[in-house]
Amino acid sequence: MTDAQIDEAFPITSRNRVKRLHERGSYDRGAVFAILDAGLLCHVAYVLDGQPYCTPTIHWREDDVLYWHGSSASRMLRHLRAGTPACLTVSHLDGLVLARSGFNHSANYRSAMCFGTARIIDDPEEKARALLGVVNRFYPDRAETLRQTSTQEAKATMVIGMRIEEASAKTRAKGVGDDEEDYGHPVWAGVIPVRAVIGAEEPCPRLLPGLSRPESLSAYREGARLDEALTQTQRLYEREPEHEH
Amino acid sequence: MTDAQIDEAFPITSRNRVKRLHERGSYDRGAVFAILDAGLLCHVAYVLDGQPYCTPTIHWREDDVLYWHGSSASRMLRHLRAGTPACLTVSHLDGLVLARSGFNHSANYRSAMCFGTARIIDDPEEKARALLGVVNRFYPDRAETLRQTSTQEAKATMVIGMRIEEASAKTRAKGVGDDEEDYGHPVWAGVIPVRAVIGAEEPCPRLLPGLSRPESLSAYREGARLDEALTQTQRLYEREPEHEH
Repeated sequence: MTDAQIDEAFPITSRNRVKRLHERGSYDRGAVFAILDAGLLCHVAYVLDGQPYCTPTIHWREDDVLYWHGSSASRMLRHLRAGTPACLTVSHLDGLVLARSGFNHSANYRSAMCFGTARIIDDPEEKARALLGVVNRFYPDRAETLRQTSTQEAKATMVIGMRIEEASAKTRAKGVGDDEEDYGHPVWAGVIPVRAVIGAEEPCPRLLPGLSRPESLSAYREGARLDEALTQTQRLYEREPEHEH
Repeated sequence: MTDAQIDEAFPITSRNRVKRLHERGSYDRGAVFAILDAGLLCHVAYVLDGQPYCTPTIHWREDDVLYWHGSSASRMLRHLRAGTPACLTVSHLDGLVLARSGFNHSANYRSAMCFGTARIIDDPEEKARALLGVVNRFYPDRAETLRQTSTQEAKATMVIGMRIEEASAKTRAKGVGDDEEDYGHPVWAGVIPVRAVIGAEEPCPRLLPGLSRPESLSAYREGARLDEALTQTQRLYEREPEHEH
C-alpha cells in the first residue's frame, strides 16, 4: 500500500458520521488503522433474528480487510455464508478525566468503528494466508516454527473477513476541560492515566530444556505498552515480502 | 442485595447460551457482575434500520441494571424512547497464549455479555440517582464535592438503562493447552500476561493551590491494576446507605 492510499479517507455516510463531539472524529484511513493495529481485542456487533450481539474476539488486518476467527459451530454460520452487515470496533482506554463538575468528567480514549459485510473466507488460498497471518501478525515469523496446521484444524476454524466500507476514528487525548467559571471550584481535578502493559513471561512448565523466548518476540518485553508492541509487530508484518502491494 | 440473590444464575436461553468452548462459560450472577464491575469501558451493540452498531462507552451498574450515557442528539433517540434490544459486553484481556501449534494459540480473558432492552431513563428521581452514580461509583463520595449539575446539563445528558434479562460470563485463565503429541515440538511456548494499570496522576494545571488528590481516590494509585481499583470502588459504592436493599 502506498502512502497516498493510506492518506485517503473513508467515505462519510449516515452510518459512520461522528454525531457526538464531532471535533473528536476522523475518517482518515491512517488514523483508523493506527487504532485498529494498536489492539488485539475487538468487539463485533451483528444481528441475528433482530437481536444484536456484541462479541469480543481477536482481530487482525490486511490492508482494508479485517479478519477474525469463528468456530464452524457458530450460531452465525448461516448468516455469514450469505454475508451479513457487521460493525467491528477497537477501543483503547487511556485515562480517567476528573473534572470540577460531573458533566465535564470524561475519559481519554481512542476508538475505531468499522462497517462492512462479514463473510466466511472460503477461498483456500486466502484462508491459508489468513491462518498464517493470525500468528505472524502478532508474533513475527512464528508460524513457520510451529507444528504445522492440519487439514482437520483448518476445517474446524472459520475465518471471517470484512472489507472496511466505512469507518471512523474518535479520540480524546487531553486534560480536564472545565467550564471557565468552574476552575475556581475547590476540588482536585486531573487525569489519571491508564495503559495496558506486558507482564513477566510465564513459560510453559513443559518447555523443552534450553528453549528461551526468541528475539522475534522482543516487542512483548516486560513493562512494554501493549498498544506499542502490537503496532510494532503489525509494521513488521506489513514488511514481509508477501504483503507488499 | 443478599448473597442468595447474587448466587442466583441468569436464565439460559438460545440468546445467551455459550456455544463455543462451553466449559469456559457461566451464567452465575456473581461471575457476570465481577467482570462488569472490573471494567469501565464497555461496548454496546444495537440495531438501527437493520445495521448493527458497536459503540464503546462507559457503563456502571446498580444491582441488575446497567447504565450508560448518551447525548440527547443521539441517532438512537427514537429507538431508545420505545426501548430497543441491546447487548452490552465488557471484556478484559489478561494474556497472550503462545502454543506449539497455530490452532492452540489463544488469549486469556474475562468477558460478560448482557442482553436486555435499552431505554431512556425519564423518571427524574432515577435519572438524578444515576447521574450521581456515574461519578460516585468510580470516585467514592466525589459527586458532593463538585460544582453541582445544572438543570440544563441534566437535560443535555441522556441516561440509558438496561435491566439484564440474560447474561453469560466467559473466562480463560490458564497456561498453554497443547495437544499431547506437540509438547516435544522445539518451540518456545508460554503465556505473556497483559494488564491495565494506573499511571502517575496528571493534576490539572489550573488546580487551586493546596489541593491534593483526596484519600477517597486511593484505589487509583500509580501502578495499581485498573480492574482491581474498579472492583474496589464498586464495592464501596454498594455499601453507601442509599444502595442497601
